[in-house]
Amino acid sequence: MNIPAALLETLHATFGHDACSTGEAERLAYAYDNSRRNALPDAVVFAREHAQVETLVQACREHRVPLTARGRGTNTTGATVPVEGGVVVSFERMNRILRIDPDNRFAIVEPGVLNGDLQRALAPLGFFWPPDPTSSPWCSIGGNLACNSAGPRTVKYGSPRENTLGLRAVAGTGEGFRCGTYTTKGATGYDFTRLLIGSEGTLALITEATLKLTPKPSGLRTLRATYRDVSSAAHAVARIMAQPVTPCALEFIDDTALKLARDHAGDSVPLAGAMLMIEVDGEAETLPSAVEAVSRAARGDGLETLHVAQTAEETQALWSARKALSPAQRTISPNKINEDVVVPVSHLPELVNGIRALSQKHDVLIVTFGHAGNGNLHVNLLPRNDAERERAHACLAEVFALVISLQGTLSGEHGIGLVKREFMPLALPPSTLGLMRNVKAAFDPDGILNPGKLLP
Amino acid sequence: MNIPAALLETLHATFGHDACSTGEAERLAYAYDNSRRNALPDAVVFAREHAQVETLVQACREHRVPLTARGRGTNTTGATVPVEGGVVVSFERMNRILRIDPDNRFAIVEPGVLNGDLQRALAPLGFFWPPDPTSSPWCSIGGNLACNSAGPRTVKYGSPRENTLGLRAVAGTGEGFRCGTYTTKGATGYDFTRLLIGSEGTLALITEATLKLTPKPSGLRTLRATYRDVSSAAHAVARIMAQPVTPCALEFIDDTALKLARDHAGDSVPLAGAMLMIEVDGEAETLPSAVEAVSRAARGDGLETLHVAQTAEETQALWSARKALSPAQRTISPNKINEDVVVPVSHLPELVNGIRALSQKHDVLIVTFGHAGNGNLHVNLLPRNDAERERAHACLAEVFALVISLQGTLSGEHGIGLVKREFMPLALPPSTLGLMRNVKAAFDPDGILNPGKLLP
Ligand SMILES: Cc1cc2nc3c(=O)[nH]c(=O)nc-3n(C[C@H](O)[C@H](O)[C@H](O)COP(=O)(O)OP(=O)(O)OC[C@H]3O[C@@H](n4cnc5c(N)ncnc54)[C@H](O)[C@@H]3O)c2cc1C
Ligand SMILES: Cc1cc2nc3c(=O)[nH]c(=O)nc-3n(C[C@H](O)[C@H](O)[C@H](O)COP(=O)(O)OP(=O)(O)OC[C@H]3O[C@@H](n4cnc5c(N)ncnc54)[C@H](O)[C@@H]3O)c2cc1C
Repeated sequence: MNIPAALLETLHATFGHDACSTGEAERLAYAYDNSRRNALPDAVVFAREHAQVETLVQACREHRVPLTARGRGTNTTGATVPVEGGVVVSFERMNRILRIDPDNRFAIVEPGVLNGDLQRALAPLGFFWPPDPTSSPWCSIGGNLACNSAGPRTVKYGSPRENTLGLRAVAGTGEGFRCGTYTTKGATGYDFTRLLIGSEGTLALITEATLKLTPKPSGLRTLRATYRDVSSAAHAVARIMAQPVTPCALEFIDDTALKLARDHAGDSVPLAGAMLMIEVDGEAETLPSAVEAVSRAARGDGLETLHVAQTAEETQALWSARKALSPAQRTISPNKINEDVVVPVSHLPELVNGIRALSQKHDVLIVTFGHAGNGNLHVNLLPRNDAERERAHACLAEVFALVISLQGTLSGEHGIGLVKREFMPLALPPSTLGLMRNVKAAFDPDGILNPGKLLP
Repeated sequence: MNIPAALLETLHATFGHDACSTGEAERLAYAYDNSRRNALPDAVVFAREHAQVETLVQACREHRVPLTARGRGTNTTGATVPVEGGVVVSFERMNRILRIDPDNRFAIVEPGVLNGDLQRALAPLGFFWPPDPTSSPWCSIGGNLACNSAGPRTVKYGSPRENTLGLRAVAGTGEGFRCGTYTTKGATGYDFTRLLIGSEGTLALITEATLKLTPKPSGLRTLRATYRDVSSAAHAVARIMAQPVTPCALEFIDDTALKLARDHAGDSVPLAGAMLMIEVDGEAETLPSAVEAVSRAARGDGLETLHVAQTAEETQALWSARKALSPAQRTISPNKINEDVVVPVSHLPELVNGIRALSQKHDVLIVTFGHAGNGNLHVNLLPRNDAERERAHACLAEVFALVISLQGTLSGEHGIGLVKREFMPLALPPSTLGLMRNVKAAFDPDGILNPGKLLP
C-alpha cells in the first residue's frame, strides 16, 4: 500500500523528522521480528508521548491505514510483522519509569521500558515484577503486557494478568482512556486491564502501565532432579504441584534436550531420561522445610539423582543445561518451530509421551522443555532440511490436536500472532471467536490495529 | 411491563411448571436484594442446565424482555433488582460441584454453589478458594464472580479475578460460549474470563466456572493491635504492607466502630482510638518469624497494645469486636449506607482523617472499618432519621470525591449495581465509559441483560 500524503504530513508534524521515517533502512529494520516472518511497513514512527499516540491512531483511522505497535520485536509469533503494510509505531523511545511507589507496591512505567531495566530499578528497594521472560534484558513491558508473557516464576507469582493494576491506552477508535486502579482491588466496571493484556496490540495501544510489585524473598534454593524417563519426571511435576509448597520455578527438560545441551556445554550437563530444575524461595528460616517438602514430592518411581545446590556457583552449574538449550538448538536447526503449549499438570505425562510418539511417526526431531509447573511446555520441532520442514508442519497440527484433547490450549505465554491464528478454531468454539470479533469491533471499528493477527 | 404470552410459553416449556412462576409470592420474593431497593419481576425461572439458559436468553432477546441473573440476592448495590421488570433467572438450583481436581488445583462448579459449601468440600483435600466474603455461607459463586467479591484474605490471595481459570456462559446475544483455560496460564485470545468477572450479569450469564484452588497453609496466627488514633493505625497499615511478609488478613476498625461493638458485645472489645486485626499464615515453622516481622511493622508512633493470640479461644476473643460490628450497626440505623471505597494504602491516613472531617461537617455518624491491607474501607453512614438521611447523601458525594482525589476508586468488592452507577463518571473518564458501552453492545446488542445497572 502507499501511504496517503495527508497522513504522512500529520505523522511528520506529530513526531518530527527524527521520529518518523519512510526510508528503506528503517522500513526494513521494522519489517520483521523474532518469528522470521516479514513484511515492509510504509512508515515507521517513534512515539514519546500519549498525546502523539492519540493523534496517530486518529489519523490512521481517518485514512484507514493499518497500524502495528512494536516493543522490541522479540516475540516469536510474527505479532509485530505489518502484514498489510501501513505504519509501525515503535515504543522503544517511550521508556521512562515514571514512578516507583514501594509503600503502595506499584510502579508506573511507559511501555518501552525494558523488563530487565525495571527489575534492576526495583531490586534495591526489595521488590520485583514477577513476569520474567528469558528475553527480559531485551523485551519491553508493553510487549510483555500485549502478549501476557511469562517465565519460570509464573508458577508461583502469576503472569502479567495477575500483576497489573491499571493501564492507559488509545483504542482503535482513536480515544485515549484509562482503566483499572492504583489499588490491589477494585470492582468499578468492566476489567479492561486484563482484556488488553494478551490482546497483542489488536484492541488498543498501551501508553502507560501501573504494575503490581511483589516483595523479593530474601532466600532461594535450587534443586536438580534427574529421572529414568520423561514420564516419571512428568509424574513428579504433578506430585510437586499437588502439595502446598509452590516452587518459584519448576522447569522440565527432556532427554533429547539434555543430549543437545551436553554436546554444546560439556559434561556439567547430566545425561538422563529427563531432568527437573526446581527452585523454592522465601525467608531464610523457611527454606529448609520448603526444600524438604519439594524433595519429598520429587522422589518416587524413576528418580535417579537429586542435588541441592549449596553455593551460588553450584546453582549456576545446575542451571547450565537449561541455559545451553537455546544456542544448542539454533546450531542444529536455524528454522526451529517453537511452540509453547500448555495442559493441566496431571496430563503432562500423556503430553510428553504423545509428543514422543508424534516425533517418531513424523520422523522429526522434537525437544521439549519448559515451565512444567504451569503445564507449559516448549515443544521445539527441529527440521534440518526441506523434507523435514514439511513433515514438521504436519506433525505440528497433530501436536495441537493432542494438546486440546488433554484440556490444554495453544499457547501459555507466546501468544497467537500471525503463526498460530489458523489454529484458533481448534482451541475456541465459533461462538467465543464470534464474540472476540465483536469486542475487536467495539475497540477498533475500522480494524486498523494490527490486522491479520490473533483472530482467524 | 407485561410479558408476552409466547415468551411465557417458551419459559414453561423450557423450565417446567415447578421452575417457572408468575405468581405474586415468587415475584415479591425475587423483587429485592440486600440493598433494600425493590422492583417486581414479571416472571421468575430457576435454571438447572446450561442449555436452558441458552434458550432463555434467546427467547428474552427475541421478545426484547429484560433478564436479570440472581444468585442468592445478598449483594448490597441493588444489582439483582429487576428495575425494568421482565424475567429473573435464579441460579440457586444449579448448584452442583462438578469436579474437584486437587492434582491440577482446580474445581469446576455450577454458579449456584454456595461459597461456604465449596470451601467445606475443599477443606478435607487441603485446599481453599481464596475469595471469602463474610456472606460466604449464603452467597453463590456466580454472585461472587459477577461482583468480583472478596474478603479479608484478598490482601494475600487475591480476588476472583486472580482465582478463576475459565468460564462457561451465555452472552446477551443468546450464544453459549466457553472462555479461559483449565491451566494456570494461557495466551490464546482475549481474556473474557476476567471481563465477565465483575460485570454484574450485564454481559453474559455464567453457567459454569473453573476455579483456581490454593493449598491451605497449615498454620495461622492472629494479632490484635490498638492505637491512640485512627491516623496512627492507618500509618501502621502502610508500614505493614511495605515489608515483605504479607498478612492473610489486615483489618482496620475505627474508634466509633469499637464503641458500637463494645455496647453490643461487652468488654471483650477494647476501647481505643483504632484497632488492627492482623493474621499471618504459613507452615508452622515459618510463623514465629512472620509474627515478628508484622509486629515490628505494627509497632510505632501511637501503638497502645499488641496481643498475639495463643489459643483458638483467644483468637475468637480477639475477633469479637469485628464480628459484633454488623449487628451493632443494624440496631442503630436500619438504613445504614454501606460503601466500600478503596485507596492506595499509603493514602489511608488521609482517607480516614478526611472521612472524620466530613462526618463532623455533615453531622452524620460514620463508622469505618474493613480490609485495610488492600486500602479497602467500609464507610458506613448511619443516619437515624430523615434529616440525617438527607445529610448523609450529601456527605456521600463528598466521600467519593475525596476517594477519587486520593487515587482511589468507588468500590473494592461490592460493585456498582444500581446505587453507585450515578457516581461512575467520577471514577472513569467518558472515553472509558464509552468503550464500556461498546463492549456491553458487543455481548448484549439489545441491552436485555440486567438493564439499569453498572453503566450510567
Ligand atoms: C531469546 C528469547 C527468549 C524469550 N523468552 C520468552 C519467555 O521466556 N517467555 C515469554 O513469554 N516470551 C519469551 N520470548 C518472546 C518475547 O520476548 C516476548 O513475547 C516479549 O514480551 C515481547 O516483547 P517485545 O517488547 O519484544 O514486544 P514485540 O515483539 O515488539 O511485540 C509483541 C506484541 O506486543 C504488541 N505491543 C508491543 N508494544 C505494545 C504497546 N505499547 N501497546 C500495545 N501493543 C503492543 C505488538 O503489537 C505485538 O503484538 C522470548 C524471545 C526471545 C527472542
Ligand atoms: C452479611 C453480608 C456480608 C457480606 N460481606 C461481603 C464481603 O465481605 N465482601 C463482599 O465482597 N461482599 C459481601 N457481601 C455482598 C454479597 O454477599 C456479595 O456481593 C456476593 O458475592 C453476592 O452473591 P449472591 O449469590 O448473593 O449474588 P446476587 O446478590 O444474587 O447477585 C449479585 C450480582 O451477580 C449477578 N449474578 C448472580 N449470578 C450470576 C450468574 N450466574 N451469571 C451472571 N451474573 C450473575 C447478579 O445479576 C448481580 O448483578 C455481603 C453481604 C451480606 C448480606
